[in-house]
Amino acid sequence: MANSKFEYVRAFEQPDCLLPNTWIVVRVDGRAFTKMCAKYNFEKPNDRRALDLMNAAAKAVVTDLSDITVAYGVSDEYSFIIHKSSGLFERRASKLVSTIVSTFTANYVHLWPKYLPETPLSFPLPTFDGRAVCYPTVSNLRDYLSWRQADCHINNLYNTTFWALIQQGGLDNKEAEKALAGTLAADKNEILFSRFKINYNNEPEMFKKGSVVFRDYELVEPDSHAITETMDSLAEPVKQSKTQTENDKKRRAKARIVVDHLDIIKNDFWDRRPWLLSNKPGKIPKET
Amino acid sequence: MANSKFEYVRAFEQPDCLLPNTWIVVRVDGRAFTKMCAKYNFEKPNDRRALDLMNAAAKAVVTDLSDITVAYGVSDEYSFIIHKSSGLFERRASKLVSTIVSTFTANYVHLWPKYLPETPLSFPLPTFDGRAVCYPTVSNLRDYLSWRQADCHINNLYNTTFWALIQQGGLDNKEAEKALAGTLAADKNEILFSRFKINYNNEPEMFKKGSVVFRDYELVEPDSHAITETMDSLAEPVKQSKTQTENDKKRRAKARIVVDHLDIIKNDFWDRRPWLLSNKPGKIPKET
Amino acid sequence: MANSKFEYVRAFEQPDCLLPNTWIVVRVDGRAFTKMCAKYNFEKPNDRRALDLMNAAAKAVVTDLSDITVAYGVSDEYSFIIHKSSGLFERRASKLVSTIVSTFTANYVHLWPKYLPETPLSFPLPTFDGRAVCYPTVSNLRDYLSWRQADCHINNLYNTTFWALIQQGGLDNKEAEKALAGTLAADKNEILFSRFKINYNNEPEMFKKGSVVFRDYELVEPDSHAITETMDSLAEPVKQSKTQTENDKKRRAKARIVVDHLDIIKNDFWDRRPWLLSNKPGKIPKET
Amino acid sequence: MANSKFEYVRAFEQPDCLLPNTWIVVRVDGRAFTKMCAKYNFEKPNDRRALDLMNAAAKAVVTDLSDITVAYGVSDEYSFIIHKSSGLFERRASKLVSTIVSTFTANYVHLWPKYLPETPLSFPLPTFDGRAVCYPTVSNLRDYLSWRQADCHINNLYNTTFWALIQQGGLDNKEAEKALAGTLAADKNEILFSRFKINYNNEPEMFKKGSVVFRDYELVEPDSHAITETMDSLAEPVKQSKTQTENDKKRRAKARIVVDHLDIIKNDFWDRRPWLLSNKPGKIPKET
Repeated sequence: MANSKFEYVRAFEQPDCLLPNTWIVVRVDGRAFTKMCAKYNFEKPNDRRALDLMNAAAKAVVTDLSDITVAYGVSDEYSFIIHKSSGLFERRASKLVSTIVSTFTANYVHLWPKYLPETPLSFPLPTFDGRAVCYPTVSNLRDYLSWRQADCHINNLYNTTFWALIQQGGLDNKEAEKALAGTLAADKNEILFSRFKINYNNEPEMFKKGSVVFRDYELVEPDSHAITETMDSLAEPVKQSKTQTENDKKRRAKARIVVDHLDIIKNDFWDRRPWLLSNKPGKIPKET
Repeated sequence: MANSKFEYVRAFEQPDCLLPNTWIVVRVDGRAFTKMCAKYNFEKPNDRRALDLMNAAAKAVVTDLSDITVAYGVSDEYSFIIHKSSGLFERRASKLVSTIVSTFTANYVHLWPKYLPETPLSFPLPTFDGRAVCYPTVSNLRDYLSWRQADCHINNLYNTTFWALIQQGGLDNKEAEKALAGTLAADKNEILFSRFKINYNNEPEMFKKGSVVFRDYELVEPDSHAITETMDSLAEPVKQSKTQTENDKKRRAKARIVVDHLDIIKNDFWDRRPWLLSNKPGKIPKET
Repeated sequence: MANSKFEYVRAFEQPDCLLPNTWIVVRVDGRAFTKMCAKYNFEKPNDRRALDLMNAAAKAVVTDLSDITVAYGVSDEYSFIIHKSSGLFERRASKLVSTIVSTFTANYVHLWPKYLPETPLSFPLPTFDGRAVCYPTVSNLRDYLSWRQADCHINNLYNTTFWALIQQGGLDNKEAEKALAGTLAADKNEILFSRFKINYNNEPEMFKKGSVVFRDYELVEPDSHAITETMDSLAEPVKQSKTQTENDKKRRAKARIVVDHLDIIKNDFWDRRPWLLSNKPGKIPKET
Repeated sequence: MANSKFEYVRAFEQPDCLLPNTWIVVRVDGRAFTKMCAKYNFEKPNDRRALDLMNAAAKAVVTDLSDITVAYGVSDEYSFIIHKSSGLFERRASKLVSTIVSTFTANYVHLWPKYLPETPLSFPLPTFDGRAVCYPTVSNLRDYLSWRQADCHINNLYNTTFWALIQQGGLDNKEAEKALAGTLAADKNEILFSRFKINYNNEPEMFKKGSVVFRDYELVEPDSHAITETMDSLAEPVKQSKTQTENDKKRRAKARIVVDHLDIIKNDFWDRRPWLLSNKPGKIPKET
């Protein structure tokens, strides 16, 4: 049963390597999560346990794949940023996407009982899909992340008001929708405050800003964007000695991976954490 | 915080729709499974519990996605065949691959305790990657599947002999490798029989042939390949009435999904199960 | 001036090989030909000299690239069909498209003075763009060609009536458009006949059917589609001896390349010329 | 003859848009030019008439497509750079490549009699193929162009020496090859000077440096790379008023397109011509 006469079928596989020297975003999205939220009775507008589970799964992905420099999550989606100099899996789109989605899913399902101990999983299980997009410049990459965080803000303000109208205001879905039609951000803030004594600014940061996952080093003094320009004009992965690469790897492995809820639209977040864009590990903070 | 100024980033996403009217194979592969086999002490050369778990995960995928007409698995890999007329997810490669990989992974991790109750999972969890390949003709598709099953046979004969030499023959890895260097299939059969009284033909079908997953209907009399030719010359998805589509859907949903260990290289398997290639549900077998 | 430090840029080139075992259509389209028709005073609705020039350029392309089995042209477009078993240029899309477009353009410009001797070319010169599309089955391929020929018929009937209304009926463009709005084919035939004594059936075949270019061998008795089915179920290029390949090449080189105006929608055209789909040269017709 | 039942074939066309915000290089290469050089008796190592014809064809391409900011040619190849902000033809690869190749070919064939009046064209005609490659940063783009110019230098020094050995030294091809095997640049310079009194530095700039084609404006004082950094960190095409866009267009149309033979590896070329990277037309030089 020689295999050789069938092997020609390998030639049908088509390469899908992503353009070198671009930032790769792999976004993972929950499949049919509206249904799932209903099935497992997730709290509205935000279920803290479900978000904590998402963050735990994302943290496992970042831990597992050190080419991911930062990740951002909101609701049932998570975006993982692979550094533009990375050659992980020869930058093959399907390999990158499937590996990240699989790692995310494995951890989500495995950690479920820890985060939702009173709600056992049943079939069909929660699953995720994914896609990869390339961004040539730091500006494009940051605009992508800003897009997601602005979306988080817009949706959360809407949802917070919508569910206040229902849960505390006694409206039904249609009435709440109608009450919000055409309202601006200021109007929603006003509704929340005047009718429900809710100051939106005091809502939890995780709900308002989403979650960022990254390796934590000592913050630096921001110095006017030099990193962006350096990264953008970079032609190739910086050549460094093997010792240097090994050192970087060790420092990266030692770094604590944190989940935080910060403004990633403004420069400050990036300026004080140059390692996110340079991929050059920072200084491990002293234990206190 | 208007979102519109960031939205241009959506234009960077590039379409990845697979060529219409071709068979889509999505292959899922275990990541670093050699390491994992060692970590969880999988039996050599085949761990029945681990294979049963793979099959259970594959069955869940076929159940979940009715556009999958047949799946074939061996060792830590599984190939899912999407019918050439399918328009699932607009045939987007990343969506198809990530959904199948995620569903497979979710079920693998969730069902682990059922199949390996004495071996609890620990980090890093088992994960899978995936890729999609298109095949224009039934011949190409069947050659792909024949390639995988021939591979299964070649590897299993080798591994069975290799581990017999070690486990029963007392050789170490290098000695066993050396003993098998340059041997043909007949030689390995001979080693197994003369030295270890193992008749390879009596080995479990699952180990020798791998596993096929499909919807089960009543077998038909084979009639000389008419299906292949019909399918191959098909231009477009067959237009049928809405009622017909609904009926098909119901019959498909009612069908029992089976895991079996059959020869899928020879014609007989395909000739007696025309629904695998036609995507036209067969007759539900009477309960006995 | 060592070149090595720059050579990394080669890695940015991305492969664009077309799926094996599919029919490749390369369609060439005139750029801004409406303007060009006006500039060079092409006759309306059809300029025989300009169509003859298109055909001559297409003939040169088919002569130059023997992997092209048939070509079909109408107006300022030409579709070249590369056999599904072809491995020309490793099936790289940009190489196939650019070579065909370049050969077509070179011949169009070079032969212009022969076909339009009284209308010298001036800048900007006539140019063409191109694209490649893959079709998995003979049905798909023939439907593509039928689409183009049906389009030719529909447009030519419209244009013939439109220009009769203007040139012989004294209407202006808007009036002619209005006169034809909502008319069916039968209505246009009626207008042509009753108002201008034009029997559309007697219009030149080239205008009504477009032009087919192919290598000419002795016609065979049609035998119920066996070729289509054989080609469609083919997995791989048929393996043949070197002598056979050489013989095929010689016969192909000897074949006369003809331009004709035939119905390519019906089966007859294909059934009597099996070499167009089989890529197996036929019998060279005896000189008479 | 309704066309609608065939129209589904359009769905088989697959999009091939190039990643936004990257520099597009379309390289055009002569097909089988070694043969063509022999056929038309081109002078060795460089035929000035043939190079002038290449440059004239390239100039026509740059004139016709104002999204091309600069082009570089050597021997039988030409690279056209489309600005990273360009949306020409929706950045479709096949459309960009085929249009540039067609325009190049049309002009090459049409202008042939002007540049080689004593050598009439015959079949098969000279043709070109093409491909598109994206570069994310100015560094990548400049490294690409440096690669081509360094290649030009290396090849021209080799060819100049090779043909001197043959034409003046009386060696045959094999002897000349052998004489040059393993030689460095300095060795070749030495051979040229000591044996043939040729000072390589005095060779024509066109042969040593190749040819650059661009719109000519007043040179500016170089100011330390600000343009590169600005262009690299750019996220999107700069938004400007319609009036501004119209003004730019007019200035671009007024600009003289020049063919020159300059060092494009060093910074000076780019620093003094900021419009090449910014795509912002410069000042039209005063007539003298």
